[in-house]
Amino acid sequence: MSEVDLNSDLGESFGPYKMGDDEAMLGLITSANVACGFHGGDPVVMHRTAARALEGSIDLGAHPGFNDLWGFGRRKIAGDSAADIEKMLIYQIAALQGMARAVGHRVTHVKLHGALATLAFDDRDLSEALVRAMLALDRDLILVSTPHNETERAARRGDIRVACEVFADRLYGDNGLTLPRSEPGAVIHDPAEAAAQALRMVDEQAIRTVGGRKVDMPVHTICVHGDNPHGVVIAAAVRAALEGAGIRVRPISELDI
Amino acid sequence: MSEVDLNSDLGESFGPYKMGDDEAMLGLITSANVACGFHGGDPVVMHRTAARALEGSIDLGAHPGFNDLWGFGRRKIAGDSAADIEKMLIYQIAALQGMARAVGHRVTHVKLHGALATLAFDDRDLSEALVRAMLALDRDLILVSTPHNETERAARRGDIRVACEVFADRLYGDNGLTLPRSEPGAVIHDPAEAAAQALRMVDEQAIRTVGGRKVDMPVHTICVHGDNPHGVVIAAAVRAALEGAGIRVRPISELDI
Amino acid sequence: MSEVDLNSDLGESFGPYKMGDDEAMLGLITSANVACGFHGGDPVVMHRTAARALEGSIDLGAHPGFNDLWGFGRRKIAGDSAADIEKMLIYQIAALQGMARAVGHRVTHVKLHGALATLAFDDRDLSEALVRAMLALDRDLILVSTPHNETERAARRGDIRVACEVFADRLYGDNGLTLPRSEPGAVIHDPAEAAAQALRMVDEQAIRTVGGRKVDMPVHTICVHGDNPHGVVIAAAVRAALEGAGIRVRPISELDI
Amino acid sequence: MSEVDLNSDLGESFGPYKMGDDEAMLGLITSANVACGFHGGDPVVMHRTAARALEGSIDLGAHPGFNDLWGFGRRKIAGDSAADIEKMLIYQIAALQGMARAVGHRVTHVKLHGALATLAFDDRDLSEALVRAMLALDRDLILVSTPHNETERAARRGDIRVACEVFADRLYGDNGLTLPRSEPGAVIHDPAEAAAQALRMVDEQAIRTVGGRKVDMPVHTICVHGDNPHGVVIAAAVRAALEGAGIRVRPISELDI
Repeated sequence: MSEVDLNSDLGESFGPYKMGDDEAMLGLITSANVACGFHGGDPVVMHRTAARALEGSIDLGAHPGFNDLWGFGRRKIAGDSAADIEKMLIYQIAALQGMARAVGHRVTHVKLHGALATLAFDDRDLSEALVRAMLALDRDLILVSTPHNETERAARRGDIRVACEVFADRLYGDNGLTLPRSEPGAVIHDPAEAAAQALRMVDEQAIRTVGGRKVDMPVHTICVHGDNPHGVVIAAAVRAALEGAGIRVRPISELDI
Repeated sequence: MSEVDLNSDLGESFGPYKMGDDEAMLGLITSANVACGFHGGDPVVMHRTAARALEGSIDLGAHPGFNDLWGFGRRKIAGDSAADIEKMLIYQIAALQGMARAVGHRVTHVKLHGALATLAFDDRDLSEALVRAMLALDRDLILVSTPHNETERAARRGDIRVACEVFADRLYGDNGLTLPRSEPGAVIHDPAEAAAQALRMVDEQAIRTVGGRKVDMPVHTICVHGDNPHGVVIAAAVRAALEGAGIRVRPISELDI
Repeated sequence: MSEVDLNSDLGESFGPYKMGDDEAMLGLITSANVACGFHGGDPVVMHRTAARALEGSIDLGAHPGFNDLWGFGRRKIAGDSAADIEKMLIYQIAALQGMARAVGHRVTHVKLHGALATLAFDDRDLSEALVRAMLALDRDLILVSTPHNETERAARRGDIRVACEVFADRLYGDNGLTLPRSEPGAVIHDPAEAAAQALRMVDEQAIRTVGGRKVDMPVHTICVHGDNPHGVVIAAAVRAALEGAGIRVRPISELDI
Repeated sequence: MSEVDLNSDLGESFGPYKMGDDEAMLGLITSANVACGFHGGDPVVMHRTAARALEGSIDLGAHPGFNDLWGFGRRKIAGDSAADIEKMLIYQIAALQGMARAVGHRVTHVKLHGALATLAFDDRDLSEALVRAMLALDRDLILVSTPHNETERAARRGDIRVACEVFADRLYGDNGLTLPRSEPGAVIHDPAEAAAQALRMVDEQAIRTVGGRKVDMPVHTICVHGDNPHGVVIAAAVRAALEGAGIRVRPISELDI
């Protein structure tokens, strides 16, 4: 494989509160995952981000999360039925679809945010709720996810295409998941190191864990972060490294998945 | 004209908080205007209401309002640009469209809620923002509104069909608008009186004001309220009176508008 | 002991949304635990409830919870540090203290709400955060809690008085905690049965579990619920049974704890 | 008068969202007006800001606003009774009083935020609601306000001390109020110009309007803004100019008001 997508979580500003440097990131990535107003984002931000994605020929994805602005969707919230979470997902994805329609774009993919994503990895009911929500709205929606977990399996059963995602700037534990941000060294701050990891992941079609394991997986899309100043520098380094190595950086919907 | 729609604002419950007797109203009306999570309602309530509307062959409408749960969308909020309110409307309507799609129904109409409706009546920019939002999402959406104001005029200019609405249980001031709820006598509590007013409105295709004016208008849809116990009794009386007089009660989308 | 307090969780209405029959309950209880605007309640409701408590010579308690109106504070939210939860508790308790001051009353006690209470039972850090919040605001505040857990132990270490609480209308598991509401039979709906259980608890100074265990504990206060119509009937039956048996029903602050 | 206070609106960050450079401002001002969780701020931010104010011997003030995070309290919201707004103010001020108590500080003053302040200037009922809220909580609280309006008059009638406030970086209209931010030139961006205006205001004990009017008023406190990078530079310039001219910069509570 000589192509890969570069994605980022964007549109997380809210009212007067700015989060991340979306403008810079939109110049570097090929797919944008847009917060839908529950853990971040608002209608004005969603609309603007959708419009900018269209201008930049960038794929537009929904990035739904818990209704938890204070916790930014990073707090694990237990107590909702999978059926109720399905409705929350429909609501958020559909709202972004409306924004896409309004600007002449379309939603190509869905990627769960924060604690909701983490919970779904191990929760078959929750993962199936996500799949039902996606199928109800558009059977062509692509799921962006770390593979080898309940979420990927539910998508496969539902005949939803899965874009397997890796993180350029995160270390992986031996369970194949990114180390929690709270662990020392979990986040890579050196652009060169992140770029090298990204390149190796694409080259090997695998991730390497801190314990030295190599976990094979198709590497369809690399996530870069724009919520800190380093993030933009890292994203630029990753993109330059990929292109320098002759790898085409293309939107998710144009990949052969 | 021997037909009319009976509409009601529904789906305004939120999480643990119940508002109105939706079940009873859904047995009496032909069009439901569903809150979209900003002034009331939530994804679970929206989904359930959409599903029940489908079962009852009831038209499903979006009932968007200000993002003001505490004030229930009845507080006038000044400071958003019309362009920003357009995005808020797209968000809310699109979210309900997603719920409709998920249950196999569709959104047929839009009716502004509370203070947003009142402000739009006199505000050309705001009314045009509404029209843009509707056209962006579905050119077949019908606007439900009191006529003879900026909102109706904006819809006409945008080639949006308008279902002219009257209220069975409200008195009208000489400006052609319902008297504020705070004025004594503004709300009709006697079911027989409300039913008689509804019948006369359909018969005359006009409203009568407290000052004795007769304001001609096509009467396409009659609003009844379910947010109090009297409301359900009134709605039943209105429906019985209409049918007793040989008037067909039909969903908005089936009317000749 | 020939005296006991009767407490209820109140003031959980929000804006236009009514929850429970506070008026009826305030005529039956001797201590009110008032929601503080995070899981329910709002400043207007808090003020009104504080004023009514004063009129009825009812003790006023803070009933803080997670900032989760949609989930009514019943969803377990993981991710906040104990230090952050301490600040959330100070905020809520202090806001009610202000309302109390404004009406000439005072806050006598604190009782955690819902998921926050359940989490604290097993979490020493969280329980100590609660104790720090209480001590920071008023060293005379009484903690209302199920005993024999981390919360009670933290209060003892902090020299905070504990009013041990039982539930008239709930069955107890063999771990000494109320059975989850979701389990069949967990909630007692028969007023006579609830009254008999309350009487036996006061008489024995113990609870009985579903497995037949008798767990000794001082029974200072009995919780009754007003969030459903049965609740008021049950509360009335409990009060009548207690008084009929010669037990004095008194506010928490007047008990010998 | 050879002394003046320097105040700033702070603590407006919310959860993951950062607003303004509070750290820098706390090194320059003598009084902090802290958002109370309605238009901005949260319990964690309030606690931290109160602690830092104590460390810096900075006066701590409540800065309550509308419950409108999305609009940052800048949207005028009509529909609440003055009695209800009184409760919202008690809630917010009391919550900050609790934070102050927890860190060993105290709340010395109150300054309304944004649209609530603007509305109160012309609204006697609203201004009296503010005064009732302040008197209910602490009769020694000082009101920080632009003078010559309903708010100041209500405070005088209630025997509340008023610290008259001017803005270093804003132009004044001929009505004696700051020009709306939306008007060109309304905000002074040049530090030297802002410092010169501040100095002249203290020297003349008056403001100058764009039309050339001189409006006499005691200048007790000068507001500087930290919500933009220029703000910190301006604040530093203002402070240096004042001290260079031999004017003592002191907290509100130490002024002779």
